[in-house]
Amino acid sequence: MKPKKIEHIGIAVKSLETAIPFFESVLGLTCYAIEEVKDQKVKTAFFKVGDTKIELLESTDPEGPIGKFIEKRGEGVHHIALAVENVQQALNEASDKGVMLIDKQPRKGAEGLNIAFIHPKSTFGILTELCENPNINC
Amino acid sequence: MKPKKIEHIGIAVKSLETAIPFFESVLGLTCYAIEEVKDQKVKTAFFKVGDTKIELLESTDPEGPIGKFIEKRGEGVHHIALAVENVQQALNEASDKGVMLIDKQPRKGAEGLNIAFIHPKSTFGILTELCENPNINC
Repeated sequence: MKPKKIEHIGIAVKSLETAIPFFESVLGLTCYAIEEVKDQKVKTAFFKVGDTKIELLESTDPEGPIGKFIEKRGEGVHHIALAVENVQQALNEASDKGVMLIDKQPRKGAEGLNIAFIHPKSTFGILTELCENPNINC
Repeated sequence: MKPKKIEHIGIAVKSLETAIPFFESVLGLTCYAIEEVKDQKVKTAFFKVGDTKIELLESTDPEGPIGKFIEKRGEGVHHIALAVENVQQALNEASDKGVMLIDKQPRKGAEGLNIAFIHPKSTFGILTELCENPNINC
């Protein structure tokens, strides 16, 4: 699939209100967008770092994926997203090589990207997202 | 501290011999270096992705930090490294802002970088490495 870059690192936090000031005042990054993704039951905050991004994820529902993740493992890295040219093609290639998929076809994620997840059992414990910008080559 | 980029993502794996072929044949990345860091009791393998890197970490000793991490949490993301201009200055700034440090001053890491770790308790569960290339501005 040859990813072009790491599109973002998704970090599960209990509270954006606490985490955003840390990333801004201690790390010196700037939050450029806050967006709710209702489908995923999360509120997200984005920061650019070089050619990649940090995406903070706060759960809007304890039963959502981030709520459950924090309950089980605490705050921390939730997923890594790789930018690919064509998510469907990358999914097909991965599946043909025996990789377990969570999504068999792309769906809409934050920032209007087409996204799909690979199962962490196939990727050394790392929940891996593939993403493609349908407008600009991300 | 204003990191210039994410220098690398450190991933704990049980076996480089199993993980490297996955990252090469499934993800389409190329391993460009394998290096042992005796001080950290690890063997590392590096892959470039855009302007950042993936660093796979295999423990050379079950009592080393990666051996213990895998025993407790399984394979997965171990740390995130941020490239800064001056590690010592970044450590001082972070400490002044109440951040808990693991290293109070830089030491040598893989690829000849000067590195230091911030405690994950201060960074939302993420073990955070700061690194500086003493030769070229990394």
